[in-house]
Amino acid sequence: MRRSLSTEELAKGVLNGEIGAVARSITAIENDLPFGNDILARIFPHSGNAHLIGITGPPGAGKSTLVNELIRVYRAGGNKVAVLAIDPSSPLTGGATLGDRIRMLEWHNDPGVFVRSMASRRFGGGLAQHTLTVAHVFDAAGFDPVIIETVGTGQDEVGIASLAHSTVLVQAPGMGDSVQTLKAGALEIGDIIVVSKGDRTDCQALARDLRRLQTLHDREDVAIDRWIPPIVITSTIDETGFAKLAGAIGTHREWLRRSGTWEERVRTMLATEIASRVQRDLQRRIQSQGISQDAVIEAVLNRQISPLAAADRLLESLSNR
Amino acid sequence: MRRSLSTEELAKGVLNGEIGAVARSITAIENDLPFGNDILARIFPHSGNAHLIGITGPPGAGKSTLVNELIRVYRAGGNKVAVLAIDPSSPLTGGATLGDRIRMLEWHNDPGVFVRSMASRRFGGGLAQHTLTVAHVFDAAGFDPVIIETVGTGQDEVGIASLAHSTVLVQAPGMGDSVQTLKAGALEIGDIIVVSKGDRTDCQALARDLRRLQTLHDREDVAIDRWIPPIVITSTIDETGFAKLAGAIGTHREWLRRSGTWEERVRTMLATEIASRVQRDLQRRIQSQGISQDAVIEAVLNRQISPLAAADRLLESLSNR
Repeated sequence: MRRSLSTEELAKGVLNGEIGAVARSITAIENDLPFGNDILARIFPHSGNAHLIGITGPPGAGKSTLVNELIRVYRAGGNKVAVLAIDPSSPLTGGATLGDRIRMLEWHNDPGVFVRSMASRRFGGGLAQHTLTVAHVFDAAGFDPVIIETVGTGQDEVGIASLAHSTVLVQAPGMGDSVQTLKAGALEIGDIIVVSKGDRTDCQALARDLRRLQTLHDREDVAIDRWIPPIVITSTIDETGFAKLAGAIGTHREWLRRSGTWEERVRTMLATEIASRVQRDLQRRIQSQGISQDAVIEAVLNRQISPLAAADRLLESLSNR
Repeated sequence: MRRSLSTEELAKGVLNGEIGAVARSITAIENDLPFGNDILARIFPHSGNAHLIGITGPPGAGKSTLVNELIRVYRAGGNKVAVLAIDPSSPLTGGATLGDRIRMLEWHNDPGVFVRSMASRRFGGGLAQHTLTVAHVFDAAGFDPVIIETVGTGQDEVGIASLAHSTVLVQAPGMGDSVQTLKAGALEIGDIIVVSKGDRTDCQALARDLRRLQTLHDREDVAIDRWIPPIVITSTIDETGFAKLAGAIGTHREWLRRSGTWEERVRTMLATEIASRVQRDLQRRIQSQGISQDAVIEAVLNRQISPLAAADRLLESLSNR
């Protein structure tokens, strides 16, 4: 009976914000079902409104708690909130993590909150592959903001910056000596820096170190309307920090709009999404020809074939469909 | 008459270290002449010996002087030295820069020094496109080290780290307030950090700031045989710094070999070269179908077509050869 819904009806359901239609559309996109493309083609013209917020940071920094509290703030403001939790640790199961289950439990009866877990599939496009495409569905269904949560694993931490309008970098005290655990280049991707676990005595020291690191990296940028990433301290004991964080995110959105950076980021995001899709498809074509990229690189490493010959071999396989 | 040389003869000439054969082979590769591929196929099995040293840093940091002094040190040690100067500022002319002309003048009569300027072509592969391929020719011709010099423009600065075994990051005092001009992420790519213009009084302050920045970024890495990028101060007035720099580069080479990092880097370098070539070729195919990638992205930005439809359109064009 559910199966008999046409893609037109499903797309309409998404645009009407029907949870069932949203869920089915996402499943179709995640599993590369052909009607996923059709639905996206129908709903995409109606997307482009939601604020995509990336949340990243090392495991144990308190991202799940933070997202949960952000949901609370946004719900209090009357927003419909979607959360895309990308879990690199379970590439095979693709199932919900414990944190998601807790959130799902808390927001279970609230149709204004949609939490979805996605396993980051590592072939080709990586993080980007389905994330933005799924976000378009939430966007078209009237969810705003769409929160994309990912565990920082170096690569992903930087990658998320091309998947969101605003990126929140979460750091917690006591995870090693001060900022020593901060991955190289990670600080730069944060539009907003959060020091979580604000009830700990060492959080002020961490905030100070982060500020110092920020200043050291400071460019000689004299732009009048420049964005300086604020550092926000949050604590589950004193919940004012989360409202402050939501405020900082809102201010960043306004700045993005005012400075023209919004359009710039959207361009980057969509270009990343397209490139990721093209790359994945090309890799599939190469694999479908029985050619292993690793084996080709191995042959070059052993100086059996030249790099140009290797490239030609890979390209050749794309033409033999 | 020169034209009549077969690719076999040219390849032999390269392997014998004949300058004319090296120059002609590089020109063939740079201009994508078919016999460039043939020559590479013949010489590539004999490459893999040279130490590829990347030199990067902001304009005016003194890279040209530094390279010139390094040539002097290596020549004194009996090495044949090749320099690939990549000039992003003249993408159209492709001609030699002033610095290169001066070097060419100085080493003009020395067959053990080969300086080649390359304009970094920005379509597709960017920096990587021909750089490594040309380096293989120098390598096979017995030049060691091969120095790849590039002006740091953010992207390129990071890019060079996947084109060289060892990367030297050059910083000069007085180019703004202390380390403020250092691009985010740039410090991390330097295996060796050089503070040039060591005769200036403020160079010690810069070295101290760089060391502090380095320490702040320090990981909790407990690897026993870990590489800590040394900071070397060089000055044209007191030339001991350049010998010290060459020593540090040599120590890094030994460390790469000992730690197994050498193989790891070679793998990255070759994979980058292959990917760059594949990407460029794919882009050419797409363009040859009269499809503009920018136009496709524009259509997505205007929400006229979905990102998946855009990807399909680009992929479609690859099959219609």
